[in-house]
Amino acid sequence: MAELRQASRIIRVRTPGRALVEITDEIASWVTGQGMSEGLLTLLCRHTSASLTIQENAAPAVRRDLLDWLDRAAPEDHPYAHDDEGPDDMPAHIRTMVTGVTLSIPLIGGALALGTWQGIYLMEHRRRPHHREIALHLLGA
Amino acid sequence: MAELRQASRIIRVRTPGRALVEITDEIASWVTGQGMSEGLLTLLCRHTSASLTIQENAAPAVRRDLLDWLDRAAPEDHPYAHDDEGPDDMPAHIRTMVTGVTLSIPLIGGALALGTWQGIYLMEHRRRPHHREIALHLLGA
Amino acid sequence: MAELRQASRIIRVRTPGRALVEITDEIASWVTGQGMSEGLLTLLCRHTSASLTIQENAAPAVRRDLLDWLDRAAPEDHPYAHDDEGPDDMPAHIRTMVTGVTLSIPLIGGALALGTWQGIYLMEHRRRPHHREIALHLLGA
Repeated sequence: MAELRQASRIIRVRTPGRALVEITDEIASWVTGQGMSEGLLTLLCRHTSASLTIQENAAPAVRRDLLDWLDRAAPEDHPYAHDDEGPDDMPAHIRTMVTGVTLSIPLIGGALALGTWQGIYLMEHRRRPHHREIALHLLGA
Repeated sequence: MAELRQASRIIRVRTPGRALVEITDEIASWVTGQGMSEGLLTLLCRHTSASLTIQENAAPAVRRDLLDWLDRAAPEDHPYAHDDEGPDDMPAHIRTMVTGVTLSIPLIGGALALGTWQGIYLMEHRRRPHHREIALHLLGA
Repeated sequence: MAELRQASRIIRVRTPGRALVEITDEIASWVTGQGMSEGLLTLLCRHTSASLTIQENAAPAVRRDLLDWLDRAAPEDHPYAHDDEGPDDMPAHIRTMVTGVTLSIPLIGGALALGTWQGIYLMEHRRRPHHREIALHLLGA
């Protein structure tokens, strides 16, 4: 049995403003480069107005509906106590809380154990484009 | 100190349609079988219309209220852009996003560190019964 | 390369009733005490009416808005099936489901890989003060 070891990295992702940006290929490529066959991948989005989700990777309409739902669930036109950073800031924090900033994905048989229709997405909740950082950690053999 | 090692497995769970299906015993049994006393268990639900949650394992009414809440929060009778796969499909994606598909549970003193009232549940968000797959990964000693 | 090892602990946190209680310093201090430079920290809140979130650590108004949003999203004045334990109990379960009870945070370069504005918070969803337990697990070298 190969000895357990770990690898970590911070990646940067540019977002176009509110969107689900797929990062599956970039993540999978980094994981493959570590040459492990079994292990655990962890992702942490290092922001409070952007988040991570595993979602449908086929129909683009699904992503639009997800963003629309978040828009209705935590709308901009509400009298938030925190409004110093623009009307899209507090909704972005709420949407981040609801969707989450960490993911844990097993690596089995040399590949991430994602289902056929699952993709990894960075969710940008602010209106303007941003550079976002995601910390990656892999432990395995 | 025993040497760190890992184990992984894909389990299949049959769901009866919309429900919280408790999988605590099956998971705990597999973990016990690996003979570790300390470690980290990771679960990944390999679907985009079913999810995982840790919830109250006593009163069944709690599970009914959780499903009812998701039904109100992401109702079927909304003009979703994505409606090719039936009226319960897009709500199922939204409910999956809100509840999440990965869980991380420490193993301490030979047992999962769950609280007394916590159970692990697979949440089926589609109306019809499905076979669902959950990837399990355990790292420990 | 230092050998991989693990450490775990249950910490107790007193809450004042509904609030976001920051636990970043206590967690970071325990992690530092383990003397690892790279690894993975996992947190599990051992309750079904309290949860964990990573959120904005600067403006207190953000925390107020987050609690207000949860109050509107899962209000007390709804005819829940489960109402034996008081009007704040079922909303607390729903809010716990939406925000989640587990977190995974990479340790890189000797520090938790949190972003500048990220803090770790225990969310108390019940009205009355409670003692809450969080299981910590650290794996690294």
